[in-house]
Amino acid sequence: MPDTLRLSLADIEALANRALAAKGFSAEQAGAIAVTVTAAERDGCTSHGLFRIPFYVAALANDNVDARAVPLVHADDSAVVHVEGGRGFCPLALAAGLPPLADAARRLGIAALAVHDIYNIAALWPEVERLADEGLVAFAFTASNACVAPAGGTRPIYGTNPMAFGWPRSGRAPLVFDQASSACARGEIQLHLRAGEPLPPGWAIDDQGKPTTDPAAALAGAQLPFGGHKGAAIALMVELLAGALIGNLFSHESKARDTAKTGAPFGGEYLIAIDPERHARDTGSGTHLARAEELFALILEQDGTRLPSDRRYATRPVHVRDGVDVDAALVEKIKAFAES
Amino acid sequence: MPDTLRLSLADIEALANRALAAKGFSAEQAGAIAVTVTAAERDGCTSHGLFRIPFYVAALANDNVDARAVPLVHADDSAVVHVEGGRGFCPLALAAGLPPLADAARRLGIAALAVHDIYNIAALWPEVERLADEGLVAFAFTASNACVAPAGGTRPIYGTNPMAFGWPRSGRAPLVFDQASSACARGEIQLHLRAGEPLPPGWAIDDQGKPTTDPAAALAGAQLPFGGHKGAAIALMVELLAGALIGNLFSHESKARDTAKTGAPFGGEYLIAIDPERHARDTGSGTHLARAEELFALILEQDGTRLPSDRRYATRPVHVRDGVDVDAALVEKIKAFAES
Repeated sequence: MPDTLRLSLADIEALANRALAAKGFSAEQAGAIAVTVTAAERDGCTSHGLFRIPFYVAALANDNVDARAVPLVHADDSAVVHVEGGRGFCPLALAAGLPPLADAARRLGIAALAVHDIYNIAALWPEVERLADEGLVAFAFTASNACVAPAGGTRPIYGTNPMAFGWPRSGRAPLVFDQASSACARGEIQLHLRAGEPLPPGWAIDDQGKPTTDPAAALAGAQLPFGGHKGAAIALMVELLAGALIGNLFSHESKARDTAKTGAPFGGEYLIAIDPERHARDTGSGTHLARAEELFALILEQDGTRLPSDRRYATRPVHVRDGVDVDAALVEKIKAFAES
Repeated sequence: MPDTLRLSLADIEALANRALAAKGFSAEQAGAIAVTVTAAERDGCTSHGLFRIPFYVAALANDNVDARAVPLVHADDSAVVHVEGGRGFCPLALAAGLPPLADAARRLGIAALAVHDIYNIAALWPEVERLADEGLVAFAFTASNACVAPAGGTRPIYGTNPMAFGWPRSGRAPLVFDQASSACARGEIQLHLRAGEPLPPGWAIDDQGKPTTDPAAALAGAQLPFGGHKGAAIALMVELLAGALIGNLFSHESKARDTAKTGAPFGGEYLIAIDPERHARDTGSGTHLARAEELFALILEQDGTRLPSDRRYATRPVHVRDGVDVDAALVEKIKAFAES
């Protein structure tokens, strides 16, 4: 086990802010990223926590990036809101775009948000959780950097292409899932490589298109979608929504463009928000919430089940109260950014 | 191989119409079902073709059903269209609801259709294909009858809960997928049972929750979602959208209500339609289509790949030209309905 330091969530947010500001991020860009990173630490999602700060800093090596970008919102009477991210990072673009998306969904029953030209190194659950916290049902989709082979194919075209979904719950945190369309996260293969352990079968193929359990061969080859051709179809859908539909890059283009090898995907994110009150057939407002709780109770009655996101929510109050044990070497690295 | 009869698509549609009319379906209900069944035969989807007619007839054993229902459309200035199916069958409700859904999507950029109180024995690809044929991107979701266990669980709660997606293509049939969130269709287990063959691992558990490859034990137990907890999350999402959101039944309720064991799920269907032209950032209308074709070409460059729905589209012109070889015993059975 590496040495750890216990940090409060306020400390984590302040550290992230200081490091990013010192590296040239605007206060607004840094602030939105720090909030996202802190939310991940709060929920025990270590790989999207402070661990990401070096990735945000590394992304500056890309000529295209603008760490001081000011997102521009375009909203009209229609159900489609656009945010021009200006080659900045996704969290600030979302902070600008989510309120008008929620407004449009409440006004019309369903609405969409196209987030353009952003570097996206974050998870998708924070945005669907935020929309669901406001009583909306939400989807989010984003492409990434090509590392996943198409169904039947041998070479990477798709990114890990997550799709997230959020459902509001009364008096408690929403039901949320945020799942890659690849069988595993790329980081999991890197962890197996470091540990010298073979991969489970079904995760990857080598550069000849043959199934492999060798992490190095997998990284040189391609990851596989989850669930065979069905997961691949979802990966393709995500490329079409976050790429072609809203006029942003596909995963293979994002990767080709990343000449500085920063690993930060550049492209778009697509979100849909739905107001259940505009879908209700009965006068009893909130019936959809009660109905969903009946279903959740039935699922949880069975031994061995849990709801998506329950693990995050179990961690949350503990980390809010006690703080988080963060890898000490990582903290040193981020402090060095802050002092640079 | 069973004896077959070669029927033209016109013959198939006429036969379906005659059989349903003789059994008491209104001309409108029968006509919409016949179109759907004929489209399936046209594309080689045998299990959704004439094979379904006996299921439609069997569904009449349910007290609740109304084979002469007239769907009622509720559309306003919002982005949400409702169709009250009136306890009839889904195809006619969709015929009523898809045009106002498409109108709303073109007017506002994104729109939704809630189809209420219908028996749904059809596939979802016809409706997303129809929307995509009109240049719209489309989703469809429906619950069914409980037969799939939740992630980590042992007893059925979800239906096979398909999700379908359609993407328009210029001058050719749309890209469409329509996939169950279960590892396999229920019918595939029945086919293995009839053939006396074991199931592939990962399809099902027995009534004790233990993995099984015995088709009979699987039918008495529960099917598994595709891709583990990720497929289960999609199954749950479908229950929430087609059930709780729009105020219709969950799969477990539909099954409990099916006391006549007709196997016909009763509930709702939820659709989303998106107008790409309202999402475009550039003046070049149709850019999204050209961009998607670039991606499709890149996928098809790799040996062993195909696009979702390509198999259906390869069959289509052959069946349009030559007709379809239909199981002779099935044709006799349906003719007997027509003469009853």
